[in-house]
Amino acid sequence: MSVLVVGSVAYDGIEAPAGKVERTLGGSATYISVASRFFTNPVRLVGTVGYDFEERDHHFLRDRGIDLEGFRVDEDQRTFFWKGRYHDDMNTRDTLDTQLNVFEHFNPVIPEVYKGSRIVCLGNIDPVLQLRVLDQVTQHKLTVCDTMNFWISGAREALEETISRVDVLIINDEEARELTGETNLLKCASMIRAKGPKFLIIKKGEHGAHLYSDNAVFSAPAYPLSDIVDPTGAGDSFMGGFAGWLSYRDRIDEENLRRAVIYGSVMASFCVEKFGTQRLAEISRFDIDRRYDAFRKLSVIPARS
Amino acid sequence: MSVLVVGSVAYDGIEAPAGKVERTLGGSATYISVASRFFTNPVRLVGTVGYDFEERDHHFLRDRGIDLEGFRVDEDQRTFFWKGRYHDDMNTRDTLDTQLNVFEHFNPVIPEVYKGSRIVCLGNIDPVLQLRVLDQVTQHKLTVCDTMNFWISGAREALEETISRVDVLIINDEEARELTGETNLLKCASMIRAKGPKFLIIKKGEHGAHLYSDNAVFSAPAYPLSDIVDPTGAGDSFMGGFAGWLSYRDRIDEENLRRAVIYGSVMASFCVEKFGTQRLAEISRFDIDRRYDAFRKLSVIPARS
Repeated sequence: MSVLVVGSVAYDGIEAPAGKVERTLGGSATYISVASRFFTNPVRLVGTVGYDFEERDHHFLRDRGIDLEGFRVDEDQRTFFWKGRYHDDMNTRDTLDTQLNVFEHFNPVIPEVYKGSRIVCLGNIDPVLQLRVLDQVTQHKLTVCDTMNFWISGAREALEETISRVDVLIINDEEARELTGETNLLKCASMIRAKGPKFLIIKKGEHGAHLYSDNAVFSAPAYPLSDIVDPTGAGDSFMGGFAGWLSYRDRIDEENLRRAVIYGSVMASFCVEKFGTQRLAEISRFDIDRRYDAFRKLSVIPARS
Repeated sequence: MSVLVVGSVAYDGIEAPAGKVERTLGGSATYISVASRFFTNPVRLVGTVGYDFEERDHHFLRDRGIDLEGFRVDEDQRTFFWKGRYHDDMNTRDTLDTQLNVFEHFNPVIPEVYKGSRIVCLGNIDPVLQLRVLDQVTQHKLTVCDTMNFWISGAREALEETISRVDVLIINDEEARELTGETNLLKCASMIRAKGPKFLIIKKGEHGAHLYSDNAVFSAPAYPLSDIVDPTGAGDSFMGGFAGWLSYRDRIDEENLRRAVIYGSVMASFCVEKFGTQRLAEISRFDIDRRYDAFRKLSVIPARS
């Protein structure tokens, strides 16, 4: 089964208690593609970069088997650059610099052969662009959408329309509260699902994630890590693992959705262990499955006795 | 198996978004005893109240089958009174009034017949008093201890000694961080367990709880509730369910500890559904087991496929 990924490809400058990197490959589409490619093929990336995009990063994406037919290089502009600093608790960060560059006029054009992709991943970009993607795709089985507080406050109307048209919305707990004006997560979930998405995933960082569907709530744990080096891309890696695994299984039911949430959590847990995409570039499918089993062990509740 | 509970018996005034109560039976020993009594017998309460302690509350404890041989009424003083107001998010509260009254000079004297109790629950009281209890008990199989930030900052030395002498410490995530000066919970847990407790439970409120033992971390979910009426006593009810169930099973291993954490979580989830002890007074063991099963369903991760 095929996965289409639309989002940003960027260079990130990251400062964290564990150290810093000046300029490393990042962006939502990068993380989503790399994470989902562990599970399925083809993974098709639609994104745009500038003349400063380095050959080794191009190679990196190609060597991981990501389909780059929808990947555009603009020779007149520079690549999107973001710089941020994480605080000691790793839960909050300051943006130090944002240079949209080529990303400012990003207009996702979906190649003809991509339009029939079965799972469509809308990375965290302007909801107006997410809508343009939805207008172009056909025959998809599942649309998965990420967003952030920036769009909730700044592009509310377009975001509401996007939300009404996707199957799975993935947001964090703060965003769910901001989107609904409601504190209680169970009520948030009902309100958001009433807007359209059949499935809602609320990420809670170090507290795991919830999956809300018609008949059930699934509470997924977070993997306990003693050292979180860099949270950048964790949410995108989650989406990649989630969508990649569902694409591979090709059956959307409660059991597979739960597995997908855990595979998403597994990818996020690896992502944060090193800066940028470094850790995702090291691991194998064997490592992923081993950590999946560790997630199960972590949360198993014995039957009553 | 027998459970000994030492802690406060109080009257609480509670203001919350859902309403308020002027004066309702509360205190850590009350909640712990009532919750643990669903699972085991005898449950022995050591606590003290004043001349204003109402006959109907005395009846309430007796009718629930709680052993009150260690329960003292001081005819010269009033009962400990606490009044607090919960904020909209239910996670934070302000203390509006504290009248220690008879509790100011509480000196737990353990009746001879109680000294052989197998599980000893040290409710959240001055660690100096917790130590006096530990000095009096013998032949216990397990000591379970609760504390709070007030003692971490105000009675550090005695608290450290208490912690070094108990088998299970139950605290919340903020307290774990305050106790260690460390943000990462996994590191907090190692540091706290190095102080003595073989088992550590870190409660995370609406995010569930973690159990740390020699070879495993157990991540227990929280039960999703759309209406939390009154969080007072939730932590004590957790301790009661935990200790009560372990007392009933009488075998301390990983499986039973996990069950105990879930039974504790079940009791806490019921407790918050109404003001004071009201909800705990309504439910049956059948309701408890049904919710245990709901906890399992909530967090079950299917095997890889």
